Amino acid sequence: MSDVGSRMHALVERLYPLCRSITGDGVRRTLEIIAESIPLVVHEVPTGAQVLDWTVPKEWNIRDAYVKDPSGRKVIDFMESSLHVVGYSVPVSATLTLDELRPHLHTLPEQPHLIPYRTSYYAETWGFCLRNETLAALPPGPYEVLIDSTLADGHLTYAEHVVPGESADEVLVSCHICHPSLANDNLAGVAVAVELALRLAERRPRHTYRFVFAPGTIGAVTWLARNRDRVGRIRAGLVLACAGDRGSLTYKRSRRGNAEIDRVTEHVLRASGRPHTVVDFSPYGYDERQYCSPGFDLGVGSLTRTPYGGYPEYHTSADDPGFVSAEAMADTLETCWEVTRVLENDRHYLNLSPYGEPQLGRRGLYGSLGGRSDTKRDQMAMLWVLNLSDGDHSLLDVAERSGLTFGEVTWAARALEEAGLLKGLER
Amino acid sequence: MSDVGSRMHALVERLYPLCRSITGDGVRRTLEIIAESIPLVVHEVPTGAQVLDWTVPKEWNIRDAYVKDPSGRKVIDFMESSLHVVGYSVPVSATLTLDELRPHLHTLPEQPHLIPYRTSYYAETWGFCLRNETLAALPPGPYEVLIDSTLADGHLTYAEHVVPGESADEVLVSCHICHPSLANDNLAGVAVAVELALRLAERRPRHTYRFVFAPGTIGAVTWLARNRDRVGRIRAGLVLACAGDRGSLTYKRSRRGNAEIDRVTEHVLRASGRPHTVVDFSPYGYDERQYCSPGFDLGVGSLTRTPYGGYPEYHTSADDPGFVSAEAMADTLETCWEVTRVLENDRHYLNLSPYGEPQLGRRGLYGSLGGRSDTKRDQMAMLWVLNLSDGDHSLLDVAERSGLTFGEVTWAARALEEAGLLKGLER
Amino acid sequence: MSDVGSRMHALVERLYPLCRSITGDGVRRTLEIIAESIPLVVHEVPTGAQVLDWTVPKEWNIRDAYVKDPSGRKVIDFMESSLHVVGYSVPVSATLTLDELRPHLHTLPEQPHLIPYRTSYYAETWGFCLRNETLAALPPGPYEVLIDSTLADGHLTYAEHVVPGESADEVLVSCHICHPSLANDNLAGVAVAVELALRLAERRPRHTYRFVFAPGTIGAVTWLARNRDRVGRIRAGLVLACAGDRGSLTYKRSRRGNAEIDRVTEHVLRASGRPHTVVDFSPYGYDERQYCSPGFDLGVGSLTRTPYGGYPEYHTSADDPGFVSAEAMADTLETCWEVTRVLENDRHYLNLSPYGEPQLGRRGLYGSLGGRSDTKRDQMAMLWVLNLSDGDHSLLDVAERSGLTFGEVTWAARALEEAGLLKGLER
Repeated sequence: MSDVGSRMHALVERLYPLCRSITGDGVRRTLEIIAESIPLVVHEVPTGAQVLDWTVPKEWNIRDAYVKDPSGRKVIDFMESSLHVVGYSVPVSATLTLDELRPHLHTLPEQPHLIPYRTSYYAETWGFCLRNETLAALPPGPYEVLIDSTLADGHLTYAEHVVPGESADEVLVSCHICHPSLANDNLAGVAVAVELALRLAERRPRHTYRFVFAPGTIGAVTWLARNRDRVGRIRAGLVLACAGDRGSLTYKRSRRGNAEIDRVTEHVLRASGRPHTVVDFSPYGYDERQYCSPGFDLGVGSLTRTPYGGYPEYHTSADDPGFVSAEAMADTLETCWEVTRVLENDRHYLNLSPYGEPQLGRRGLYGSLGGRSDTKRDQMAMLWVLNLSDGDHSLLDVAERSGLTFGEVTWAARALEEAGLLKGLER
Repeated sequence: MSDVGSRMHALVERLYPLCRSITGDGVRRTLEIIAESIPLVVHEVPTGAQVLDWTVPKEWNIRDAYVKDPSGRKVIDFMESSLHVVGYSVPVSATLTLDELRPHLHTLPEQPHLIPYRTSYYAETWGFCLRNETLAALPPGPYEVLIDSTLADGHLTYAEHVVPGESADEVLVSCHICHPSLANDNLAGVAVAVELALRLAERRPRHTYRFVFAPGTIGAVTWLARNRDRVGRIRAGLVLACAGDRGSLTYKRSRRGNAEIDRVTEHVLRASGRPHTVVDFSPYGYDERQYCSPGFDLGVGSLTRTPYGGYPEYHTSADDPGFVSAEAMADTLETCWEVTRVLENDRHYLNLSPYGEPQLGRRGLYGSLGGRSDTKRDQMAMLWVLNLSDGDHSLLDVAERSGLTFGEVTWAARALEEAGLLKGLER
Repeated sequence: MSDVGSRMHALVERLYPLCRSITGDGVRRTLEIIAESIPLVVHEVPTGAQVLDWTVPKEWNIRDAYVKDPSGRKVIDFMESSLHVVGYSVPVSATLTLDELRPHLHTLPEQPHLIPYRTSYYAETWGFCLRNETLAALPPGPYEVLIDSTLADGHLTYAEHVVPGESADEVLVSCHICHPSLANDNLAGVAVAVELALRLAERRPRHTYRFVFAPGTIGAVTWLARNRDRVGRIRAGLVLACAGDRGSLTYKRSRRGNAEIDRVTEHVLRASGRPHTVVDFSPYGYDERQYCSPGFDLGVGSLTRTPYGGYPEYHTSADDPGFVSAEAMADTLETCWEVTRVLENDRHYLNLSPYGEPQLGRRGLYGSLGGRSDTKRDQMAMLWVLNLSDGDHSLLDVAERSGLTFGEVTWAARALEEAGLLKGLER
């Protein structure tokens, strides 16, 4: 297991017990822990603030919650799992029969041993989530029911981390941080983003990389509302989620379908030989919904392993740290890194000797013994770069048309540039 | 069997015995019977009239025809089937040996029990069509041969029925009515057109629907010649034929290949889940040949069940009322109706809240309990309509890209329009 | 075996023993023999001449070469095969042990009974090519080694043959003539080109056809350097090579991918029913590399049977006259001829009666008896030509869309033009 994989898994395990929601101290504590690895600018937006079509809701916090059976035993206990309480449950303290309690209980009859994840952000109610097998064994009651929560004016909290680049062009990496004790969705995404940021900072990149850690939907909406005049700088972006399960990678295209991020990520996945899936945009899933709303229409895709809702553990207590693996997160990270390699290095070159092939042999770039049929890949890369460097094709175009990897093509372009045969174009 | 199916089948049976051709009283009588269901404007165009590159031919009428064997028995009898006489046969009254008669006899050696359908509109001759098994049994003769026909100056007859709409834009539905006793080709097409017209008239449509009942080729040519200054109004059209056999539906694209009618009909067929076939335009078949000639190049496709020449009963006495079914005609009618539903309802909308998703929950358009993975199709429809309503995409575009049906998308657009989130665009 | 096939095979056999290279008397003698069939203009370009990015090298000639073992027996003998000497070997006369000799010996360990083909044009060295099984049996030596060659200022030789046409537009056919005793690569290509030129000259063509016989790479580069102001006339071209093996045909597209030559050759191959392969351009192979360099980007593809490096006999002594067949060369020639038929005859026509179908029957172009379902291909061809002759579609477009052959479509266009229904457009 790689060091970076272990480190990501340790972060998932540490963040896992916290009760996150779209607001509240669970989010703040999560950001504090992230900030131990990468500096964050934390934003607090007050309840009632208008953000695009939405209003920042009241802040929700919870200290304890349980249901005690007639014998005083806690049959549902928030301390055991943050999933046991419906997110945004209003406070309650009552004694209820099972029949009275039942409308507030959520289970998964077809997965009787799992606790579901449920929320009710915009309708004031309360509820518990529990294993269906627990529910089946409950006597008629009465039950002592407690939810020690507060729903009050406060703030929505989100954070940004920026890796400054040579250019003001930005690449956005966005993770949702509103899910309570769920590991793949989305602590694995957070862990990959943290390590990607660290790696990008090792050497000043060409583009600026902006990492946004925000609650789903309302958080992305809030970020967009407060950055309307800056979204024009975003040339590419990835929404990172479900980054740690053992399934293969899935890339969901931006709404535009052929944005730079789409071409780059698809090339990286194809060239890697990894099994993977590419799907078209749909207006459901994670925060690409917001970034790709028609008014913004950003070139932002979504990278996951098994996608949204695509695994039985999804939004249940089975999405725990054991469900995500260090290897899978390392693989996701490596893919993200390769995507940034293409974003960083793709550019247009001009062949300065475009009439006929230049004589590579004279410049030490070509084997001297002719007649052999096993031309090497590096020679092919040089020939392809020369042939397509007419100002219309970037290195990514060359890689896609030639079937070579972006790395091979980039190496060839550098060799040719050093030999004076190629000139990089500014654009 | 549906009422409408029975009604269509009854019309086929009633029209079947008439001896239609490209001119003559068989056509007039056919139109009289159609006019009992829907009002028709009948046009009479005189022999010799120049219509595009063609000239309206002499009018042909026939009263009787037979071939009597030496014993006086009618071995071929027009009264038994109108197919027995080659269409446009000139009058003849003669006594001939079998050898003399034989060049005038047409059979289907490979389908010996069927009578073929043959015509000779533009070369003056005469002939009989008969079962090959009848021919095989004929003694040497002599035979008394009679064709009591007239080929004389007269008129070409065609008719129109219009369902007026709010707009002068026209949708054309065209049926050929020149085939004698053939049921699928094309009495079934006529029957479907009649019922479609009745159904369209139940509520004033947005577009105007023009039904043309005309003899094949020369009739469509005549209609085009007399409406050259009006064809610009035709935004879409269908040539209806072979509408009643038990095979699956076939849509033949217009010459343009991506005209509105092409996209609409293909969507309807795809979304219906019906087995069906879509084929590209070719300059052979029914009157789409004329509507899609390069000078007009109208957006007119052709809807059939088993297409032109694609079934062994084609152009034989086996294409009788038993060959067409009420259910199949009802299915063709339903498809035509769905096509008109898309033509009527497709339009462009503008999302009035295009930055981020609007908060549907606040407007009662979204379930309040979050976390579930089984998002309903109506919510997906709303999200898709919102996401693509940027002024560039119509509801049909939304349906095609989302995989939802046009009906689902239309419902969502109405719900969003009522909620003030969407505005219909005029264009 | 066809006469032309035999003639081509005889030419291959006659040219086979000559020791060709990129310069020298082997090339001159090859051109003399070709000139016995078709007149050639021979160009001599002096050593040191600058051609694009290259410099014309010294001229290489060789009279004899051998390696004698201690007993005086020639274990390697240039007189036996011109492949035995590495092309452009500098003179050598020495006595060497096997260990000293070994770095100068080239074999194919995996094809031990074959002599490889090797050259060293741009690095001054010397070497011998031999069967690995010969090498394995060699005693330690010493060996008498002789290469009686000269590498000195002289000329690069290439030749052109032109079949003048009505127009100054040119079609280029290019063959490399630098390979010594290799039959498929490229004497078969030369033989096919010679016969194609003879056949084109039988009747004055519409386009001018220019045949270039030149050494690979440096020859094409030289031709391009000396014709920079004329390449604009080249509307299409084929690099002909590997034209005689028994494999099926392979067409390699031009860099543009949809140039006239690409569409024409692909149509000819498809319509012929021949098994064949079409591959995209890549900047490796034969002289299409030069013609398709980005500065020229000519519409030049490459026609071979089994392509470059695609057969085990490639660049070995097994590529001898027995490896190529008269039938295969005749088939390649026929394909080239059909390509020229399309290049010669493709044009745009205008339907002069574009509104509705013109009445073909009146003009004797259509069967008079209607109702039959077996419409003939010639009638379909006329209908397709009429339908698509709107000024935007050429006869090749018609052939491609209709699925008919170019010949059928051309026949129909001529019949329609004679009937006054079609007018050829100049462009």
